[in-house]
Amino acid sequence: MYADPKKVDKSTGTWSTTHCPGHPEIEVPGVEVTTGPLGQGIANAVGLAIASKNLAASFNRDCDVINSHVFCVTGDGCLQEGVANEAMAIAGHFGLDNLTLLYDNNQITCDGPLSWTASEDTNAKFQALGWHVIDVFDGDSSVESIVKAIAAAKLVKGKPTFVNIRTTIGYGTGTAGTFKSHHGTYTDEDAAKYATDGINTTHTLSERTKAYFASAKDRGQTLQRDWNLLLERYATNYPEEAKALKLRREGIIKSEELLADIQIPKAIQATPQFNGRVFNTLMDRLPQLFAGGADLWNTSQMVDDSKLNFDRAHPGGRIVRYGIREHAMAAVSNGIAAYAPGCFVPVTATFLIFYLYAAPGVRMGAMSGLQVIHVATHDSIGEGQNGPTHQPVEVDSLFRAMPNLLFVRPADAEEVIGTWAVALGARRKPSIISLARDAALFSVENTDRRKVARGGYVVAEKEGALVTLVSCGSELQFAAEAAKVLNAEGIVTRVVSMPCIKIFEEQDREYQDAVLSDSKHIISVEAYVSSMWARLCTASIAMDSYGFSGAGDENFARFGLDADGIVRKVKAHVQGPNKDRRRWTLLK
Amino acid sequence: MYADPKKVDKSTGTWSTTHCPGHPEIEVPGVEVTTGPLGQGIANAVGLAIASKNLAASFNRDCDVINSHVFCVTGDGCLQEGVANEAMAIAGHFGLDNLTLLYDNNQITCDGPLSWTASEDTNAKFQALGWHVIDVFDGDSSVESIVKAIAAAKLVKGKPTFVNIRTTIGYGTGTAGTFKSHHGTYTDEDAAKYATDGINTTHTLSERTKAYFASAKDRGQTLQRDWNLLLERYATNYPEEAKALKLRREGIIKSEELLADIQIPKAIQATPQFNGRVFNTLMDRLPQLFAGGADLWNTSQMVDDSKLNFDRAHPGGRIVRYGIREHAMAAVSNGIAAYAPGCFVPVTATFLIFYLYAAPGVRMGAMSGLQVIHVATHDSIGEGQNGPTHQPVEVDSLFRAMPNLLFVRPADAEEVIGTWAVALGARRKPSIISLARDAALFSVENTDRRKVARGGYVVAEKEGALVTLVSCGSELQFAAEAAKVLNAEGIVTRVVSMPCIKIFEEQDREYQDAVLSDSKHIISVEAYVSSMWARLCTASIAMDSYGFSGAGDENFARFGLDADGIVRKVKAHVQGPNKDRRRWTLLK
Repeated sequence: MYADPKKVDKSTGTWSTTHCPGHPEIEVPGVEVTTGPLGQGIANAVGLAIASKNLAASFNRDCDVINSHVFCVTGDGCLQEGVANEAMAIAGHFGLDNLTLLYDNNQITCDGPLSWTASEDTNAKFQALGWHVIDVFDGDSSVESIVKAIAAAKLVKGKPTFVNIRTTIGYGTGTAGTFKSHHGTYTDEDAAKYATDGINTTHTLSERTKAYFASAKDRGQTLQRDWNLLLERYATNYPEEAKALKLRREGIIKSEELLADIQIPKAIQATPQFNGRVFNTLMDRLPQLFAGGADLWNTSQMVDDSKLNFDRAHPGGRIVRYGIREHAMAAVSNGIAAYAPGCFVPVTATFLIFYLYAAPGVRMGAMSGLQVIHVATHDSIGEGQNGPTHQPVEVDSLFRAMPNLLFVRPADAEEVIGTWAVALGARRKPSIISLARDAALFSVENTDRRKVARGGYVVAEKEGALVTLVSCGSELQFAAEAAKVLNAEGIVTRVVSMPCIKIFEEQDREYQDAVLSDSKHIISVEAYVSSMWARLCTASIAMDSYGFSGAGDENFARFGLDADGIVRKVKAHVQGPNKDRRRWTLLK
Repeated sequence: MYADPKKVDKSTGTWSTTHCPGHPEIEVPGVEVTTGPLGQGIANAVGLAIASKNLAASFNRDCDVINSHVFCVTGDGCLQEGVANEAMAIAGHFGLDNLTLLYDNNQITCDGPLSWTASEDTNAKFQALGWHVIDVFDGDSSVESIVKAIAAAKLVKGKPTFVNIRTTIGYGTGTAGTFKSHHGTYTDEDAAKYATDGINTTHTLSERTKAYFASAKDRGQTLQRDWNLLLERYATNYPEEAKALKLRREGIIKSEELLADIQIPKAIQATPQFNGRVFNTLMDRLPQLFAGGADLWNTSQMVDDSKLNFDRAHPGGRIVRYGIREHAMAAVSNGIAAYAPGCFVPVTATFLIFYLYAAPGVRMGAMSGLQVIHVATHDSIGEGQNGPTHQPVEVDSLFRAMPNLLFVRPADAEEVIGTWAVALGARRKPSIISLARDAALFSVENTDRRKVARGGYVVAEKEGALVTLVSCGSELQFAAEAAKVLNAEGIVTRVVSMPCIKIFEEQDREYQDAVLSDSKHIISVEAYVSSMWARLCTASIAMDSYGFSGAGDENFARFGLDADGIVRKVKAHVQGPNKDRRRWTLLK
């Protein structure tokens, strides 16, 4: 469903995909989520459980047409990761009794014994987080004990369940109980020590095991048939609901229609404020949207009291309060998106800088082709008051380089609408909608919601221009203002709005050339360290340091990124000694 | 001590620094660490406590010349962050009884009541993690209760202490107990409700309070004088130790001398294997080095059994087993580096991809001017077996753009030595030493440890070259090999090794021009998405997707980044329709 097109192309070409990758990969049939980096899977499982709870609350009537119990297997390593601890707290808080975490407790990690790195009381920690705990002491030798624990876990109400299964890594082999069994290969000698009835069961399956797994296909088909029958009864008894569920599962989003009638208000608002309005309109129109924030929901202007919080009493609620747990927010959202293709489009929100906390989760979503829309506000030195720790200057460099992710920085209200259309239309990739804190101007001349879909376009044309300024976000207004001053002073300057570099680079060559023009100087203007811009531009007006704890608008002046600063730097460059320099130049 | 030179320049120029930034900033006298992004401070405090334990174990004799008790104040938010939970587990595991965490438990976060996001039993969680817990129930009204709790905390042995202080946010004002007191400003009306003896104590200090803080200077001077006297006694009784401590505090590192005699072994080794040897040599020679890994210590080839693990029984040990807690590893290391300027140079190690988990901590270290050396191995698609989840293709884009951080990718053993010299010499910035998993060639012709300090340099010169290939890391060997083939086919090609773009860009213009030359085609070769390279190059041979779960060396061929792929792409470009294109081009 989420196949990476690149991989699919390759499977028919020189390079083939594999059904046995080093870690589970979502492209392989039957694999729910791509995991591997520790902790992600636990957070994904929490997302799957939340999605099931929500869909069940929306659609179940007298029969449980939606009724998933999510199982997640973890080792010692995942339980140490911050993202897992965040997700475990979320699961306990929401009382996700449709989630069971099976802990392969072998007390060994890559480097050595767990006692080197942990001495916590894991069961007590889970209980403190609101989980039910079941112990299995004979995990090495009794499948039955584990099966019993699973059955018991499924009966627990109001709490997720943690099954603590004591095992021995490499059980029975010559390296049992040591880190040498953690990875790498067994020597023939080590493996030979573990043999039952003369069969080396580390390398060979018994007939009984083979038969069990061979019957899985039949069991699966029976389950599938039973569910289809249930669905038919549901359609007979609840035709309206069944139709709505079918629509959800088809997952069609007519993104342009949804947004076409949204008007730009007359009164000036900050970009996040207007974005919040668009988001709330979309929440009304798109039942797939399922949103949540990491405790900056109010500040990011996403708030609307009419939207019910998701919680244990209101599993039908569509706003998740993730707490100050950005990494889990992203990774849980991946699980929600993966639950049933098309059924959910998760939205997350926090400051752009805190998407750096969430980055490994954002990356997993991009790699897995999951549509999650991340709303990142306070996206530059314009954030002001919280100082450099809260002002991203390099985070865009990561996300713009991240494959299969759209990083879009709209300049004004008109482009915010176009950005949502792009993000909603990108059904197999996540997007980051990056927004300034405030917008001194609410609207930049000639911006166009439809043109956001081309990544970049001209907002101020000039024949035979010496200079093209390329900008986005809150800096476009300064670039547009600077261009007017430069033109008045005889330096012919045109202006391009470039909300998304990646989409622009996907346009045909002729379009790209026309937008960038053959101006001698093509100069990007953005309050970030310039990395990707050098692909398109001859020079950049940019940051080369962290920001500053001061008023946001003063910061643009402080770092020479307001209209005055741009004019000064452009003039110094086009008249200066480096004007014919071949390589990209950072303008000072 | 760690003043950002940029800010210092500004304080004497147009823009001044402030002693009241939005969040604590290390440049302000008396501030130990820069905090603000939630969770970092707790991890920093754990680092400060570890540093104190280690230095005490190294130097204390019959008198405690090193004896810090570290206090950290936290709110509800920090306690939810993954990095804080990782750090709390580390503190409990190591039994850091010189650490007290004071919890301002007001049950309110930015967005609303804590009950929206958390229902854990916080005390039980800390106890499960091995902490001692002290309750304070009257935190609003009794300073005495808090002082008593602190006194009790200082007496606890073998455990860090968590003081759970119940408070009311905005106590006494009109918005008390609500998120409206969390940030923003009080209205006059709200504030007027909190008044004692007619004094509005939200805005005005009482005479008693003023007198208390006014006396702080005297108290501090007395403490300082007492410590200096202790130090004098110590010098009399233990002259050798005192001399060693003085050297540590001066923190001088003669990085070139330290490395000058290290020989390249005859037998071919993987780059991390040789790097491990260099690291272990440095551990012997530099008592400041204090290292730790996130459970890939063995795989990253850092291991040497002669180095004692730091743990509660061996606080003098210099290898910390951080567990699978990458984010805390980086943030704890910042605390260690900040403990006493010069006394510690923390080293961390894991795979490059997992520095994405650690990125917010790495960023805080860079912003704070703290020297921490991060050893990142398995740094590309050459990682192979673990697949795309473990193969960074865009992580370099973040770290190369991050201000005040050096991202260095040595190509072979010779450059590994030069990279350590650079990292050890950068006393006010962190470095990432990025290493391939394997190196098909152990040595590339003409690499030079001394020239790493210039960021980039020529390894294969050719007069009047049409093409300059610029590469680094494991790809330099392929570029060098490709250049030989291209030269044999009449396409005159020279080769530049560029282990650190940032350092290269700091060189004078003439040097940069000479290294890059006036070749028509300057082409970067690297198995990453190309972002920063466009600043220097006309085209790139690069990745534009995630990697692949397959053998590492096959991956270079799969994505056209081995010598054959480079030759093919260069030929197609220099003879193709885009050869005169003005803009940067990704070669296909």
